[in-house]
Amino acid sequence: MFPLYKVGIVGATGAVGQEIIKLLESRKFPVSRLRLFASSASQGKSFQFKNDSIKVETLKQGCFDHEDILFFSAGATRSRQYVPEALAQGAFVADNSSAFRMDPNVPLVTINVNDHLIDGREMLISVPNCSAIILLTAIGPLLKLGNIDRIIVSTYQSASGGGAQMMQNLIDETQAYLEDRSLGTEGSSYPPYAFNLFSHNTPIDEDGLNEEEAKVIAESRKILNNPNLKMNVTCVRVPVLRAHSESVTIEFSSHRPDLEVIIEALRNSKAIKIVDDRQKNQFPTPREASGQGDVLVGRIREDISNDRAVSMFIAGDQLLRGAALTAVEIAERHLFQISMNDGFKAKEENLSQTLS
Amino acid sequence: MFPLYKVGIVGATGAVGQEIIKLLESRKFPVSRLRLFASSASQGKSFQFKNDSIKVETLKQGCFDHEDILFFSAGATRSRQYVPEALAQGAFVADNSSAFRMDPNVPLVTINVNDHLIDGREMLISVPNCSAIILLTAIGPLLKLGNIDRIIVSTYQSASGGGAQMMQNLIDETQAYLEDRSLGTEGSSYPPYAFNLFSHNTPIDEDGLNEEEAKVIAESRKILNNPNLKMNVTCVRVPVLRAHSESVTIEFSSHRPDLEVIIEALRNSKAIKIVDDRQKNQFPTPREASGQGDVLVGRIREDISNDRAVSMFIAGDQLLRGAALTAVEIAERHLFQISMNDGFKAKEENLSQTLS
Repeated sequence: MFPLYKVGIVGATGAVGQEIIKLLESRKFPVSRLRLFASSASQGKSFQFKNDSIKVETLKQGCFDHEDILFFSAGATRSRQYVPEALAQGAFVADNSSAFRMDPNVPLVTINVNDHLIDGREMLISVPNCSAIILLTAIGPLLKLGNIDRIIVSTYQSASGGGAQMMQNLIDETQAYLEDRSLGTEGSSYPPYAFNLFSHNTPIDEDGLNEEEAKVIAESRKILNNPNLKMNVTCVRVPVLRAHSESVTIEFSSHRPDLEVIIEALRNSKAIKIVDDRQKNQFPTPREASGQGDVLVGRIREDISNDRAVSMFIAGDQLLRGAALTAVEIAERHLFQISMNDGFKAKEENLSQTLS
Repeated sequence: MFPLYKVGIVGATGAVGQEIIKLLESRKFPVSRLRLFASSASQGKSFQFKNDSIKVETLKQGCFDHEDILFFSAGATRSRQYVPEALAQGAFVADNSSAFRMDPNVPLVTINVNDHLIDGREMLISVPNCSAIILLTAIGPLLKLGNIDRIIVSTYQSASGGGAQMMQNLIDETQAYLEDRSLGTEGSSYPPYAFNLFSHNTPIDEDGLNEEEAKVIAESRKILNNPNLKMNVTCVRVPVLRAHSESVTIEFSSHRPDLEVIIEALRNSKAIKIVDDRQKNQFPTPREASGQGDVLVGRIREDISNDRAVSMFIAGDQLLRGAALTAVEIAERHLFQISMNDGFKAKEENLSQTLS
């Protein structure tokens, strides 16, 4: 018998929380019972999980009851407030918020890049920013081909990054535009969205970077364990529902690996699918990336403006690879490590019994 | 009395042709009579110009009657076929197609960058590719601040670049998507467009560049008279109707000019409007750029990954600045140069009479 675990989702009614519920079911995550937490605004809602209808509980102090695994997707403020309580009760926490990402004591993990940091003992793992995950998933396989000196990225980010409400706004505004109704966007924290795009609507720092860009840079440096990595990042929101695309140029320190070697490294990586048919003009699109866990990588080409660089165009589901799926895979890896550690302990015990 | 000119538009029913009709009226272009040419498919159509309803004539050999000025916006094949005839009859031609852009004998002109090539004697001027115009309009003012070594661009191109039909497709597909009708896109030369984006749907060359990227590179080098300019260009079509946006990084050869100096140079340029309010998070958007002739420039910042580089985000109306308005301004400049040349001739004649 495999063990089953008491699992909870904080922010269960949000776009990411909803994906986590589905993933726990579709991936046969070993759940003994599932609890769903959200703010009091979601009181009365319930969601289907396997054959059960699970009522949403209000997130509040003392609401946890020694959960084994908790997924947090309710924003940094909530995580700061409730993660310590969860940890104190012995839960393993995969946190989708930015609350602890830059904490030097908390591993910030991208699958296939630095998931060796999940050792079964670390009880809090931060899930990186979605744009960073999608970028680093595609760059991960290139790390062993040479030192990377500089990364230049322009993003094409979907509405889902702003949550379920922003996805609905995009649909509503587009509908209104097509019907020639004006839908007031005054007071909105971003420009009109129908058939429009805009620089990521987060505060700008003194370097002129918005918060999203600053996150991608800081988190990439931490994940790649390269505090001096040079990065030029421009984050843009486009009228796409749920997958982020990125135009990426990677400059190596010394020389550019052969294109064939790069493609082979990408092809052999988990969480990556190459979509790069020059003849048929088939390359990654966010619509194709939507609903799948792989990051699509294409337009792989030498940078004709720099003989140490390659360029590519990538697309990944923001809700899955960029958040929910990464969180669930982190928890799965944690459970795998526990079983490995237990197995190792058991072997050690066997061995010491044999020796004694 | 200012002289008036016989003006014709080839491709008058297309998205760009329609904008040219409006611009000739709104800018009080000195028209004595306007003729509209299109393929026989447009027979029977007519369009309003000032107080007249002008019938579309079928483009065919011998259709011109010593026009003074002809705007061509009907694709490269038509331009190759009919521009020689127009020139032979003494017309001045502003050609929006790619037919003659790379012809070393034909000036390729961006206003504010190399419009000095319009001297009143050159009778054929090529209008650059729309993405190149919008890019170079924003880069033009920086040319005098230092040598530019490398330009890195990712575009966010609108449907209008694919013509009126592509704009309609974007609207129809989006409507169908919202109504949950599937609108077959099989056989289309590009991926589903509703809430989607895709690598520019033009053939890929052996360097892995699509035709649009290759055009931007070749044309920029010609316009800037810098055949060795290094360029990394990624062209992407986004679900936006009529303005192109571009994420641009410019690397100078020696050192980076002060940001204040760069902003001042941009501010003092025609055809540019700075939209760069970090406090209010207001930056260029394609919706705001739509319908105006200026290229919006914002997110102007030092590139923290390269101390010789600056980054910016720009947006320009593809149909106006990227095509129709540039063509009309080229024709206006031609007429201005003619009057200058005539004035100079008159002065010379006066002078020689005085001296004799």
